[in-house]
Amino acid sequence: MFGSVRTGVAAGIAAFFGIAALSYLLVASAAAPGGATAAPPSGATAAAPEDATTAPPSGATAAPSGGAMAALEYTPDGKLKKPEGYRKWVYVGTPLTPNELNGGEAPFPDFHAVYMDPESFAHYEKTGEFRDGTVMIKELVAVGSKAATSGKGYFMGDFIGLETAVKDSKRFKDEPGNWAYFTFGHHYPLKEETAQQSTVACNSCHQASAASDFVFSQYYPVLRAAAPKSK
Amino acid sequence: MFGSVRTGVAAGIAAFFGIAALSYLLVASAAAPGGATAAPPSGATAAAPEDATTAPPSGATAAPSGGAMAALEYTPDGKLKKPEGYRKWVYVGTPLTPNELNGGEAPFPDFHAVYMDPESFAHYEKTGEFRDGTVMIKELVAVGSKAATSGKGYFMGDFIGLETAVKDSKRFKDEPGNWAYFTFGHHYPLKEETAQQSTVACNSCHQASAASDFVFSQYYPVLRAAAPKSK
Repeated sequence: MFGSVRTGVAAGIAAFFGIAALSYLLVASAAAPGGATAAPPSGATAAAPEDATTAPPSGATAAPSGGAMAALEYTPDGKLKKPEGYRKWVYVGTPLTPNELNGGEAPFPDFHAVYMDPESFAHYEKTGEFRDGTVMIKELVAVGSKAATSGKGYFMGDFIGLETAVKDSKRFKDEPGNWAYFTFGHHYPLKEETAQQSTVACNSCHQASAASDFVFSQYYPVLRAAAPKSK
Repeated sequence: MFGSVRTGVAAGIAAFFGIAALSYLLVASAAAPGGATAAPPSGATAAAPEDATTAPPSGATAAPSGGAMAALEYTPDGKLKKPEGYRKWVYVGTPLTPNELNGGEAPFPDFHAVYMDPESFAHYEKTGEFRDGTVMIKELVAVGSKAATSGKGYFMGDFIGLETAVKDSKRFKDEPGNWAYFTFGHHYPLKEETAQQSTVACNSCHQASAASDFVFSQYYPVLRAAAPKSK
């Protein structure tokens, strides 16, 4: 009888750990969509630009001090390390400011593919607000072609730059809106880590002209459609 | 003794179903990232265009006959129902063919935000191939503004159209490459369901000019970077 009870208990414990393991996978999958099936092969180098869409090694990332779950990592002296995995985040829109229409030197050449971390996007869908910990990515892409079978226009060429905006009320408590801005360069190879931009370099323009909480949502139709007020 | 064995077996069965349920959640989560937290409130209407980013009701979707997991649903007579949730899929690129550069009538006005279903993207990362069941979405967005604080150019306005390409060797076995193409219109409100386009309307051009398996990957830097050959 006792032996049989032990068998039942053992089965229950095994079931608990099996469920716990799957629950962990479930959470990991939600935190980094596609990451569960997209882990780089063991031994792959993690610094190549082409690896931006692969999941970072488990345990290598740290949550922002604001308590959010977006995978950002800072150096001890406060520099932001180049984000990874953002090409599987939620895409919100693509402004295009070609160099050729801006005296050969656009501030952000040329396409700007903009992403938002998935957990903050889910919060935005419910509330219409950018939660503490929100991370926005602006990936710059060169114009590659001006004509295709679909017509004349602008077609994406190569990746050329990467910028990040982070809202963090603890880490950036002195910045207007608690938003800090980082640029990893406008040509490859990108910087592996970078210091925060001065307030006047980025924050001031976002504060003055962005439609909602320092975010240029007026140019991001996905955000406008996802806000609760439009439902 | 037999009673105890039954207890152990019962615990084992309970564990199996618990794990199976969590496995299902895991797959559902991977199929629609963020969907678990983005379900529409009970009673919300599902047909509004703004709801495209919310998860469809559990059980309402059917896997393509090719065995893939992307959430597409067909009518009994083979029409494709308007896809949902694709704004949380993997974004691959944005061609822009403004009406103004194409005699006032571009074939696809103006921005084309292109997405790929996450499971097929994960397969593409491993193999560089578009698996059976791959779904590509082309969401058309009007040019909304021609100037902003970041310079002169093109900025996204409103959503105006939606098109879908599906690779399915069973359902579309007679189409070149097994790719079928569907358009839900180039102005809102979009069609709720639509019949397959004729082969000459879409497939032929994709076959002739797309860089890889009927997909215009030459204009999608995310796909080019994710293919194994570039790692």
